[in-house]
This record gives sequence, structure tokens and C-alpha cells, in this order.
Amino acid sequence: MDSGIASTPEPPYTAVIFTSVRTDVDDDYADTADEMVRLAAQQPGYLGHESAREGVGITVSYWHDERAALAWKAIVEHVGAQRRGRRDWYRDYTVRIATVHRAYTMSTSTFD
Amino acid sequence: MDSGIASTPEPPYTAVIFTSVRTDVDDDYADTADEMVRLAAQQPGYLGHESAREGVGITVSYWHDERAALAWKAIVEHVGAQRRGRRDWYRDYTVRIATVHRAYTMSTSTFD
Repeated sequence: MDSGIASTPEPPYTAVIFTSVRTDVDDDYADTADEMVRLAAQQPGYLGHESAREGVGITVSYWHDERAALAWKAIVEHVGAQRRGRRDWYRDYTVRIATVHRAYTMSTSTFD
Repeated sequence: MDSGIASTPEPPYTAVIFTSVRTDVDDDYADTADEMVRLAAQQPGYLGHESAREGVGITVSYWHDERAALAWKAIVEHVGAQRRGRRDWYRDYTVRIATVHRAYTMSTSTFD
């Protein structure tokens, strides 16, 4: 994750695309987001993630297979519920679960 | 695209996940990026896109099927070559082509 682009193995693998628009509520958000990243990295089948927010927020996490991705989704929902609900933080969000079939990388970096 | 979250139909459909790290070169970049968005929206099978840059840039475009996505990829590469190459603008990038199997949306907006 040095460059912010996840290093992923040869396809196929699973991508979870989480796109969101935040509310103005910030209670616990940053702490919980950090905790989510730590938790994700500990899950079986975690391959990496990429994240950016600029108006809309996009986080893509990569998983060995759909089973691992769905297990992660269940954990996110459980933690979200414990934290009084993601509805406090998000005005809208969409989660998409996808199978990556092809991937192409271009790097001009001398070191990885 | 009002909220920045793409409105997409029921899965399955295709997602093209383009993750990039920019160089410091800005020649033509913004104009070309805008042109790409306009061009994409005119392509057969275009469903929508989402984009954010915060260190890393993530653009996810959605397509009716993989054929439409690959046709778009060919156009991007053609235009990129015409514009002296995307290598001027990107230090690193990865393109992933994926089939979305499941999608969940939460909206608290009164109007869409």
C-alpha cells in the first residue's frame, strides 16, 4: 500500500466497491474508519484496499473470494450497529461486490 | 450523478476500476479528463461513473457488460496515445475489470 494502489495477485479475486456521501456528523468516524482498516487487514482472504474521498468517497477492498468479502461485510455491519449505526455518518452509500476478471498495471516507479 | 454515487441497474453489470497515482505534469490533464467523461457517457453500454482523488485517484465506471467496458478501454488507450501518452500524467496505475454480482444501497436523501 506504499503508493496507495493495492498490490493484488492475478485475477480472479473479489472487489468490494463502497461508494459513499458523508453527513456532517463526525462522532467517532475517523477512529472507526481506522479501526475498520486494521480489522480488514486481519481477516482471512484480505488482499488490500484503496481509498479516496473528494466529495464522494470510494473505498475498494480486495478479497481472495466472495466468501471472504461477504464475511467482511457481515463484520462491518456488526461493528456499524455497535457504533450506533453507519447512518449517522453516511447520507447515501452503495456497496457493490464484484469479481475481478482482468487487471493491467503500469508503473514508472523505480522502486516498489 | 447528483450525489456522486452512480445509479446503476440490478446486477450483473461490469465495473472498470481505475486506480492511479499522478505525476506533477498537468499539461492537458484536466481538459482530457473532462473529455474522457463526456466521451464515456456517449458510449454504448455506459451506466455511470464515480471518481475521487485524495493522494490516490479512484475512478469506477460502470458498463452494461464486459464487451462495452473493453470497447471503452480501447478508446481510452487510443485517446491517451494521441495525447502523448498517459505516462506523462500517471506515475502508476492499475485497471481492473470486474463483474458486479451484488449491490446494496442505503439512502437517507428525501429526493434523488
